[in-house]
Amino acid sequence: MSKIKIESGAYSLLNPGCVVLISAGDGGGEGVFAVTWNMPIRKDPAMVAIECGQNHYTYQFIRKTGEFGVNIPDAKMVNQVLGCGTVSGKTGVDKFERFGLTRQTAEKIKAPLLAQAFANLECRVTQVVDMGASALLLAQVVSAQVDDRHFVDGQLVFDNGLQLLHHLGGRRFCVSDRVLMGEMG
Amino acid sequence: MSKIKIESGAYSLLNPGCVVLISAGDGGGEGVFAVTWNMPIRKDPAMVAIECGQNHYTYQFIRKTGEFGVNIPDAKMVNQVLGCGTVSGKTGVDKFERFGLTRQTAEKIKAPLLAQAFANLECRVTQVVDMGASALLLAQVVSAQVDDRHFVDGQLVFDNGLQLLHHLGGRRFCVSDRVLMGEMG
Repeated sequence: MSKIKIESGAYSLLNPGCVVLISAGDGGGEGVFAVTWNMPIRKDPAMVAIECGQNHYTYQFIRKTGEFGVNIPDAKMVNQVLGCGTVSGKTGVDKFERFGLTRQTAEKIKAPLLAQAFANLECRVTQVVDMGASALLLAQVVSAQVDDRHFVDGQLVFDNGLQLLHHLGGRRFCVSDRVLMGEMG
Repeated sequence: MSKIKIESGAYSLLNPGCVVLISAGDGGGEGVFAVTWNMPIRKDPAMVAIECGQNHYTYQFIRKTGEFGVNIPDAKMVNQVLGCGTVSGKTGVDKFERFGLTRQTAEKIKAPLLAQAFANLECRVTQVVDMGASALLLAQVVSAQVDDRHFVDGQLVFDNGLQLLHHLGGRRFCVSDRVLMGEMG
């Protein structure tokens, strides 16, 4: 193969983790936005990291409560993900109504969860790494639930139509929905 | 849908980012291992975060040099990824030889890169968040290159057979290789 050097945009090469919808609220206001840059950082007790713009409308609720919901959509929610990632809560729009999202009451945090997401993690922030315009939030998962058709014996399964959604940039996403088994040589 | 509560293993829900092979070396020793938990954390200048076990054989070289390579495999490399993620460098095995990996000289760091990976990022650590048994490494991308068949106009493209590889756990991976375009409602 021939490789070309990338002067900018190298981040796009690592991009396609599962895009998630982050929800937050303080009982009064609330918001939801899309986050492509997220990952687990500890197995047990589970922790996650998300990268969040500090000027996002929803970030004020995370800062105030120290809590957020991670809502994992599958490919059926692609337009809702795009909408939540494109429209700012600062416009005054109710994204739940605008994009047909159904609130689901969380067990341990104030933030509303999204019923349509196939999985929801309730998270409490433990550390904030200031990145300037953005913040890297490290958080403990205090409660988690998942559609039992898509998670069997502690593993994601694709037999029942699960299509994981990964963000490539702009309106472009890619989908993963089939398992490949590695073999030890 | 019905959702079940997850008492442990919630991290598996966020798991399938693109698995990468991390290479590091100090000019004397070197190593390579697989990392599922990685993400971009800044666009420009590009930065990445990876989660790394502090007892990994290869981590000593990252600690010593402050540098590592992120090598992004596609699905053709699934067995090499599994091997590099399963066999420890502490056994004395040369993983490059054992798994048929070809060294590629980096431009700005001492670590060898992997020629078979469709993309390579050369990284310098800027911050270490101690997570106990593991460390969250924040790093700047100082050089990056990619197979020009798979990255056009700053975007990953799948027309030439690219299959992104995501780790689900154990020997299980999933593959993403088709684009889905979101539509604004």
